[in-house]
Amino acid sequence: MKLVAYRKEQGEKYRTGVLTDSESIADVETLSKQAGKEKLPADPVDFYARAAEHVEELQKILNEEAEHETISLQDVHLGMPLGKAKKVICVGKNYQEHVHEMKSDIPDFPVLFAKFDNAIIGPEDDIHYPSITEKLDYEVELTLVIGKTASKVKKEDAFDYIAGYTLANDTSARDLQKRTPQWLQGKTLDHTTPVGPWVVTKDEIDNPHALNVRSFVNGEERQSSNTEHLIFDIPFLINFISEIMTLEPGDIILTGTPHGVGLAMEPSGLLQGGDHVKLEIEGIGVMENQVKKV
Amino acid sequence: MKLVAYRKEQGEKYRTGVLTDSESIADVETLSKQAGKEKLPADPVDFYARAAEHVEELQKILNEEAEHETISLQDVHLGMPLGKAKKVICVGKNYQEHVHEMKSDIPDFPVLFAKFDNAIIGPEDDIHYPSITEKLDYEVELTLVIGKTASKVKKEDAFDYIAGYTLANDTSARDLQKRTPQWLQGKTLDHTTPVGPWVVTKDEIDNPHALNVRSFVNGEERQSSNTEHLIFDIPFLINFISEIMTLEPGDIILTGTPHGVGLAMEPSGLLQGGDHVKLEIEGIGVMENQVKKV
Repeated sequence: MKLVAYRKEQGEKYRTGVLTDSESIADVETLSKQAGKEKLPADPVDFYARAAEHVEELQKILNEEAEHETISLQDVHLGMPLGKAKKVICVGKNYQEHVHEMKSDIPDFPVLFAKFDNAIIGPEDDIHYPSITEKLDYEVELTLVIGKTASKVKKEDAFDYIAGYTLANDTSARDLQKRTPQWLQGKTLDHTTPVGPWVVTKDEIDNPHALNVRSFVNGEERQSSNTEHLIFDIPFLINFISEIMTLEPGDIILTGTPHGVGLAMEPSGLLQGGDHVKLEIEGIGVMENQVKKV
Repeated sequence: MKLVAYRKEQGEKYRTGVLTDSESIADVETLSKQAGKEKLPADPVDFYARAAEHVEELQKILNEEAEHETISLQDVHLGMPLGKAKKVICVGKNYQEHVHEMKSDIPDFPVLFAKFDNAIIGPEDDIHYPSITEKLDYEVELTLVIGKTASKVKKEDAFDYIAGYTLANDTSARDLQKRTPQWLQGKTLDHTTPVGPWVVTKDEIDNPHALNVRSFVNGEERQSSNTEHLIFDIPFLINFISEIMTLEPGDIILTGTPHGVGLAMEPSGLLQGGDHVKLEIEGIGVMENQVKKV
């Protein structure tokens, strides 16, 4: 299944929806009511607060229920699919060629850093480019959505705790990221980090370590790699992170970006106001955002 | 005013309270009802979601209302005073002598890093010392509580956006903090970071840049400095951080720790299971926690 957060009118609350084909969605709360089942949450935050259970219930409903109302994707605006991010955990330096292009060293352990919720936007929103930075850059990343509370999870059990996958642009203000030893201030500018376009439930992805990952700026291919090149793979990350902190349903983990970022290009390929950024991960989807000077 | 989150029985939700003298509190929702005013939120999270307004309303009620029920502090358990942390923004390297003892360099800009909510505990809770680290350390820090949405705030307006002050132990697993270039993984272990014992509203603190800051382990003084030695002072920090990210009521900012941390002592003064840690900031309060191996 592909799960979205959608609204019909500006100012409305986002609701949980599910794609019924490539052009339409059904409302998840309405579906559950029509099926005479326990009501599934309209609010994506509540849906992901018990993500694993709710995904399972929704799957049953869709398997049983033949008739349902649909809404055209053209008539809705998609928001950050989880409604609101809980923990946003990012992994740095997780593709070898990206580490080399950044003139850095392969880490002995996953490098973890944070973004705050103020940075997170939906898949159809503009990426803000504020005047405090002159070096805004893109980073396409496979993103894990946690489905169940996870503490000290063994590698072999890691996928039990994942509800699905989405994609994110770990937009980075390189000047702010590098002016102190800690990256946070370059990673969490307001309204910079689109996530989406939807959460693809894990049953749809046979092998998350074999997905092409690409980014384009104004149609020009910039990044092109495959998740097979992750230095620390998904079971390693879930084990590693859950040994440090308890993960909760609705947390997301950005798994790192491959080579081809704007900062490393000659001449520089950093973003400009008005740029069109397209990210694509095989089996997950495509996300396109405009860059807007604010 | 000194504002607490309290509960009488384990398993109950924490409620917003206010100290009426050094030994007792009054329930804030009850006070507002007795005064015939608009009800103030029982849940600290809701109280701090509009912190500046609610503090003002509560102050009026306390000025008008002579009689009110009180509860002995001995009969309650105090929790993290804001109920739950929203953004937890930490400032590193913000006292010169601490930068020197860490053999580091004075930064050109404030060094910002994050903790997640899983790390935050109340003022009477035990600091967990998990087996993943062998180098747990204490850091006493003056902590700012944001009262109003703050974006691009000028230095001269900074205090308008602060609801009050509290204190925090920015407990740090030095081995995990330093095994990669990003500190997050050493800063956000579960159940390690006490905040409290209460929020002191800003009207009670004449000059937040003239407060003695001390920490003790098993009665031995470890840190002793004064907030006059902050490299980047409070108006600088509010301006700097709010240029990067929009601050929301209920966000907290840990302003950095002075010299005397366990890692820098010879022989090492790192924490051990069973240790008793006492933090004290003049005008704010005292917070005492036990360290517990888990």
